[in-house]
Amino acid sequence: MSTLHDRAVRGFASDNYSGVHPEVLAAIAAANDGHQIAYGEDAYTARLQEVFAGHFGEGVQAFPVFNGTGANVTGLQSMLPRWGAVVAASTAHINVDEGGAPERVAGIKILNVPTDDGKLTPELIDREAWGWGDEHRAQPLVVSITQSTELGTLYTPDEIRAIADHIHPLGMRLHMDGARISNAAAALDLPLRAFTRDAGVDVLSFGGTKNGAMLGEAVVVLDPAASDGLLFLRKLNMQLSSKMRFVSAQLIALLEGDLYLRNARHSNAMAQRLRGEVEAGLADRSIRGVAFTQPTQANGVFATVPDGVADALRESFRFYDWDAARNEVRWMCSFDTQPADVDAFVAELARLTTA
Amino acid sequence: MSTLHDRAVRGFASDNYSGVHPEVLAAIAAANDGHQIAYGEDAYTARLQEVFAGHFGEGVQAFPVFNGTGANVTGLQSMLPRWGAVVAASTAHINVDEGGAPERVAGIKILNVPTDDGKLTPELIDREAWGWGDEHRAQPLVVSITQSTELGTLYTPDEIRAIADHIHPLGMRLHMDGARISNAAAALDLPLRAFTRDAGVDVLSFGGTKNGAMLGEAVVVLDPAASDGLLFLRKLNMQLSSKMRFVSAQLIALLEGDLYLRNARHSNAMAQRLRGEVEAGLADRSIRGVAFTQPTQANGVFATVPDGVADALRESFRFYDWDAARNEVRWMCSFDTQPADVDAFVAELARLTTA
Amino acid sequence: MSTLHDRAVRGFASDNYSGVHPEVLAAIAAANDGHQIAYGEDAYTARLQEVFAGHFGEGVQAFPVFNGTGANVTGLQSMLPRWGAVVAASTAHINVDEGGAPERVAGIKILNVPTDDGKLTPELIDREAWGWGDEHRAQPLVVSITQSTELGTLYTPDEIRAIADHIHPLGMRLHMDGARISNAAAALDLPLRAFTRDAGVDVLSFGGTKNGAMLGEAVVVLDPAASDGLLFLRKLNMQLSSKMRFVSAQLIALLEGDLYLRNARHSNAMAQRLRGEVEAGLADRSIRGVAFTQPTQANGVFATVPDGVADALRESFRFYDWDAARNEVRWMCSFDTQPADVDAFVAELARLTTA
Amino acid sequence: MSTLHDRAVRGFASDNYSGVHPEVLAAIAAANDGHQIAYGEDAYTARLQEVFAGHFGEGVQAFPVFNGTGANVTGLQSMLPRWGAVVAASTAHINVDEGGAPERVAGIKILNVPTDDGKLTPELIDREAWGWGDEHRAQPLVVSITQSTELGTLYTPDEIRAIADHIHPLGMRLHMDGARISNAAAALDLPLRAFTRDAGVDVLSFGGTKNGAMLGEAVVVLDPAASDGLLFLRKLNMQLSSKMRFVSAQLIALLEGDLYLRNARHSNAMAQRLRGEVEAGLADRSIRGVAFTQPTQANGVFATVPDGVADALRESFRFYDWDAARNEVRWMCSFDTQPADVDAFVAELARLTTA
Repeated sequence: MSTLHDRAVRGFASDNYSGVHPEVLAAIAAANDGHQIAYGEDAYTARLQEVFAGHFGEGVQAFPVFNGTGANVTGLQSMLPRWGAVVAASTAHINVDEGGAPERVAGIKILNVPTDDGKLTPELIDREAWGWGDEHRAQPLVVSITQSTELGTLYTPDEIRAIADHIHPLGMRLHMDGARISNAAAALDLPLRAFTRDAGVDVLSFGGTKNGAMLGEAVVVLDPAASDGLLFLRKLNMQLSSKMRFVSAQLIALLEGDLYLRNARHSNAMAQRLRGEVEAGLADRSIRGVAFTQPTQANGVFATVPDGVADALRESFRFYDWDAARNEVRWMCSFDTQPADVDAFVAELARLTTA
Repeated sequence: MSTLHDRAVRGFASDNYSGVHPEVLAAIAAANDGHQIAYGEDAYTARLQEVFAGHFGEGVQAFPVFNGTGANVTGLQSMLPRWGAVVAASTAHINVDEGGAPERVAGIKILNVPTDDGKLTPELIDREAWGWGDEHRAQPLVVSITQSTELGTLYTPDEIRAIADHIHPLGMRLHMDGARISNAAAALDLPLRAFTRDAGVDVLSFGGTKNGAMLGEAVVVLDPAASDGLLFLRKLNMQLSSKMRFVSAQLIALLEGDLYLRNARHSNAMAQRLRGEVEAGLADRSIRGVAFTQPTQANGVFATVPDGVADALRESFRFYDWDAARNEVRWMCSFDTQPADVDAFVAELARLTTA
Repeated sequence: MSTLHDRAVRGFASDNYSGVHPEVLAAIAAANDGHQIAYGEDAYTARLQEVFAGHFGEGVQAFPVFNGTGANVTGLQSMLPRWGAVVAASTAHINVDEGGAPERVAGIKILNVPTDDGKLTPELIDREAWGWGDEHRAQPLVVSITQSTELGTLYTPDEIRAIADHIHPLGMRLHMDGARISNAAAALDLPLRAFTRDAGVDVLSFGGTKNGAMLGEAVVVLDPAASDGLLFLRKLNMQLSSKMRFVSAQLIALLEGDLYLRNARHSNAMAQRLRGEVEAGLADRSIRGVAFTQPTQANGVFATVPDGVADALRESFRFYDWDAARNEVRWMCSFDTQPADVDAFVAELARLTTA
Repeated sequence: MSTLHDRAVRGFASDNYSGVHPEVLAAIAAANDGHQIAYGEDAYTARLQEVFAGHFGEGVQAFPVFNGTGANVTGLQSMLPRWGAVVAASTAHINVDEGGAPERVAGIKILNVPTDDGKLTPELIDREAWGWGDEHRAQPLVVSITQSTELGTLYTPDEIRAIADHIHPLGMRLHMDGARISNAAAALDLPLRAFTRDAGVDVLSFGGTKNGAMLGEAVVVLDPAASDGLLFLRKLNMQLSSKMRFVSAQLIALLEGDLYLRNARHSNAMAQRLRGEVEAGLADRSIRGVAFTQPTQANGVFATVPDGVADALRESFRFYDWDAARNEVRWMCSFDTQPADVDAFVAELARLTTA
C-alpha cells in the first residue's frame, strides 16, 4: 500500500489528526512475530502492568482498551450499579462527545453541571450530589473530571484532592477522564501519581491515542474497591483486543521511558507558542480582534475571532469551531506540531485580522 | 521498547495468537505522518471504500471497526429493530463467544439451532423462523451464518443462496460473520463476491485480524436497504477509531492486492498438511487413536484424541480443547504457521499416541 | 381483606396519594366476569380506541400501559432511533423523576435545558437542537414537553404550536407528557385535541392515574408517522397488561363522559382555593412570609415559606419540599381534595406563620 | 361505563382470559378512599410484607410489580451482575414468551436447555453450567425454573432441592417463575414455603394475575443475599406502581386467607375433570384420536388431536395451539371455569372426533 496523503500537512484541529510517533511504531514492530496468547495473557500486557505500577504504585490494575469512549464507558460502568449516575461538567466529553454511549451502552445517567472553565468544584458537584436512597432519582455515585479538561484547563492536585475529600464521605467515587493526562503531567511538572492516585482518584481512563499512539487507552483501577467486573465488562463492551500485545506495546512505548512526557511537553509548548505569538501580535496590533476565552494550560487554545476570520483561516489550516454562535474557536497542538506550523498559522491570522 | 517474547515460538491455538504480516506493518507506516481528518474522513478510509467496491461491486459501504465482536454486534444491530432476533447456529461465535454482548449491548435475542457441522440450512432455520407479528416473541428478522464456520467447515455458494432465497421472502435478512472469510475465499477458490453479495448476503463482518492484520474488521453493507444507522451505531458501540487511517490501511494492505488470499491459502494449506500427515500416520499406525470430527475445509482441524494426549501434547504446543468431555480438540493454523511447525507437531502427536 | 387506613385523612403531597374515583371502580366491576382475550384484543380496549378517536380524531392509536414512566419511556422510544436524544426542560419528570429509566431502558440521552417555569420555548430548544448528522452527538430528534408542567404551569395552544412549527421543519417530533393533561384541559377550557393534535403534538402520554384512576395510562400516537413498533416496545418494556380490559375500562370511565374534566376541574379549583385563601391571608396579615414561586394554573401550588414552617405544617398535612435549600414547597390538590381540607390547611399555615 | 361483553362466555385459552375474583375486587374497594403514601409506603404494602412472612417465614422481602414479565426480568436482574446469564428450560416463559425483554431490558443471556416436560434437572443444567471466569462466556450464575411449568407439570420439593443443592456450591442461585405457583401449592398440597424457600429457592416471582387478581405479581426475595437493588431496579424497569396499595390489596386478598388455594384447587380440578372426561371418552370410544402429551399436574391439559379438529373446536371455545405442526393443543382451566364449561367442551370434542 502506498502513501495517499501529503505527509507535510498539519493543522490545529485535533491531537488525533496526527499520526503515530516513530517510537510507538517501533514498539509495535518489536512485539511482532511468533505467537502470543490472545486477549491479554501475553508478555507485553504483563509488562504493561509493571509499567503502570511504576507510575501509579503497587496494586493498580490496567485494562487496555481500544479508544477513549470505550475507556470512559467501561470504567464508569465498573464503578456503578445499574441504577447509578455520574456527575460531570456539562462540557465533559462523556456528556457531549460520545454519542450517547454512556447512556445507551452502560445505562448511565449523566447529571451535568455548567462550569466556566470545564472544571468541577465541591460546590458545583453539590448541585447534583443528593437524593441517595430515593428510587426516583438515578443515584449519583460517581464524579467524573477530565484532566486536562476539554477547555484546555488544568486541575491542581489540591483541587482534585478537595473533590475527592468532599465526595468520598458521601459514598461517591472519583473517575478521571485522562484522554490528555500526559499533557496535564507535563504542564503540572508532576508525576502522574501526584494528581491521580495520591489525590484521591479511584479509576482513570489513561489516554494514549491523542499523545502519539496509533490507538490504545487503558482503564486503570487505582482503588480496586471502586471497580468491579472489568474483565467481563471490557469484553461485553467490545473493547477486548485479541492481539492485545500490540495495544499494550504502544502504551509501554509511551510510559516505559519518558515519551509520554516528551510528546506532551512538546504539544503544550506549541500551544504556549501559539498563544504567546498571538498575544504579542495583539500587543503590537499586528493581530486584531482576537480574545482568549480560557487560560492555555495544556495543548489547546480557545479564542474568539472577528466575524469571517475562522472560515478564512480554515482555508489554510484545519481547526474546529467551539461555539460558532460567538465565533469561538479551538486550536489544538499535537506532538508533531512544528514551530513553523505555529508561525505560519499566526502569520495568516495576522493577515486576516488586519486585512 | 524491547522484544519480550520468543519470536520463534508458534502454536496451534488460534489464528489470533499470531502477529502482523510484514506488508500490513508496512502499510501502517506508509499511512503515518502528517495530519489526516479523524474518525474516517481520511484518504485511507476513502481508498478502502474503493477497494471493497472492487471486491464486492458498486454501492457497498464499509465501516471499519476494531474487532470481530464489534463488527458482528454493530452490523446485526443495524439490521434489526429493537424487537428483533437473530437465528444462528448454536456454535456461532455470536452465541457462545461474545460474552453476551449481542444481548446486552444490542438487545438482540439469539434464537440458536443445534447443527452437526456449524452450518444452518433452510430446514434448520425454520425451527426458529416463525411468529412474526406476535409481540410475545422476539421477532426473527435476521439469519446469521459464519463463513468459514467455527467448526472449520464451509458453505458452498449454492448453500448460501438457498438460505437467502428461503429467508428473503419471509422478510428476513442474511448476515455473514466473516471473521475467516478469506479462508473461505481461498478454499472455494472464488472471488469474495461470489459467495456473499452474489449469493444473497446482505451485511458482512469482514475479518482482518485473524488473517494477518494487527486489528481491524469492517462491517460491509452489501445491500444498503438491509442496514440503517451504522454511522451512529459504530460510535455508540464504541467502535469508532479516531485515527482510522491506520485501521483502513491494514485492510487495504490485505485487500488491495492478493495478500488476503496468500495468507489464507497458506493457513488452509497448513491445516491440510496437518490433517494429511495425521491421516497418513493413522494409516501406517505411527499415530493411533485420533479421529477427525469435522471435515477440514479451511484452517482448523477438529479431532478426538486418546485420554491424556491433549494435555501431554500441550506441553509442547498450545491449542484448545473444543469439547473436553469427549477429548475433542481444535488445532488452528495461521498465516505464519510453518511446515516445520506442522511436522514437529505431528511427530509429537505420533510419539504420544504410540508411547 | 379489611380496610387498614383512615379513609378520612387526606393531604397535599401528590395527586397519586389519592384513591380511585367511584365511577372508575364501577367500570372495573362492569368489565369483570366471563373471558376476554388477553393482551388487548378485548372489547374494552377496542372501545377505548373509539373513545380516544372521539377526543383526538380519526387515525389515532392508543396503547394502554401501566404507569407514567412506562408511557413516557415507551412512547419516546417509539419515536427515536437507537441514536436519538430528547430535548426537555431540566425539571421534566423524564429528566429528574424516572430513576434513569429513559437512559437505561430505552438508551435515550436527555438534553435538558433550564427554564424558569418548566416550559420550553423555541429559543430554549435551540440550545440543544443542533448537530444532526454528527455521530459524536446523540441526535436530538424529539422535544418533550409536559402539560400541565411539573411546576403547575400551562402551555397555551399557541405556545405548543410555536414549538411544533419550529421543530418539525428541523426533522424533530413533539412528545407531550400528559400525566396531568386533564388538568390542562380543564384549566384551558379546551378540548384535549385543541392543544395536542391540533397544536402539532405527535405522541402523547395520556395520564389517568393522577386523575382518579387506580392505574392506567396510554401512549397515544397522534401522528402514526412519528412512531414505530409500539406493539413490540410495550411488551419489551414490560408494560403489556394481560387482563388489559381492566386498564382500558378505567380510561373509558374517565374519557367516555366528562369524568376526566370533572375530576380535573375540581382539583384545579381546590388549588385556586388554596392559593386564594393564602393570598387573602397575606393581604390581611393573618398569614406572613409566604411567597408564591409559580403561577397556579393547574392543581399544584408552589411557594416559599418561613424557616421551620414546612416541617411544622407537615405534622398535620403531608406535602413535599420542592427545593428545601430555599424553603420552597409543593402543595398538590387532587380529585378528592375537599374544601374543608384546604381551609384547615390554610388555617394551620396561618397559625404557624404568625406564631 | 357499561358492560361490553358476554359475561357468560368462557373458554380454555388462558388463565388470564378470566376476570377478577369478587374477593379481590372487594379488597380493592376496601383499600380505597383517603390518602396513602404512594410508591409503596402505604398500609397495605406494609401488611403484605407480613402476609408474605406468614407464608415464607421471617426475613423475606416482597416487591409488588405489575406483571409477570416485570417480576421475572426484575427479579433475575437483581440476582445477576451485568455479565450474568440464566440457565432455563427452552420452553421457559422467559425464553419464549417475553419478547426478548430479559435480553433487551436486563441484558441477560438465557442459556436454554431442551427438556421433555419443561423441567430442568441437575444433569440438564450441567449442559450450560460451565465457563465461570471466562470473559468470552456470559457467566451462568442463576438457574430459573417454573412452578408449575409451562407444560402443566410440577417439580416435587425433592426435585427442587436437588437442583438447589447442585447449583449453590457452584456459586449459582435459584430463581422460580411462580406465575402459577398457587396451582403448584394446591396440586402438591403443601405450604408455599415447602417447595420454595425450604427447597432452596432464592428469589421467587409470585403470580397473582393468573389466579384471580386483576393485575399484580411480586418479586419475593427469599434469601436477601441473593438479590441486590430491587428498590431501584423496580423503578428503573417501570414496574413501580404509584398507587401501590391497590396492587398490594389484591395480593393480600389472595394470600391472607386461602383464596389463592381455593382458586388454584378449582382450576386444577377443572383440568382433572377435563382430562378425566376425555380419557373416559377415549376408553368408551366416544372420543377418538386424542392423545395426551404431558401429565396433567396443574391447570393445563396438553394433547394432540386429529387433523382439523382444533380449528373446528375453536369455533365454539377459544384455546391455543401449542405445536401446530403436530396438532398439539393447550387447554387451560381457570379459577372461574365451570364444570358445565368442561362438559360442553368435551361433548363438542367428542362430536368432532367421531363425526
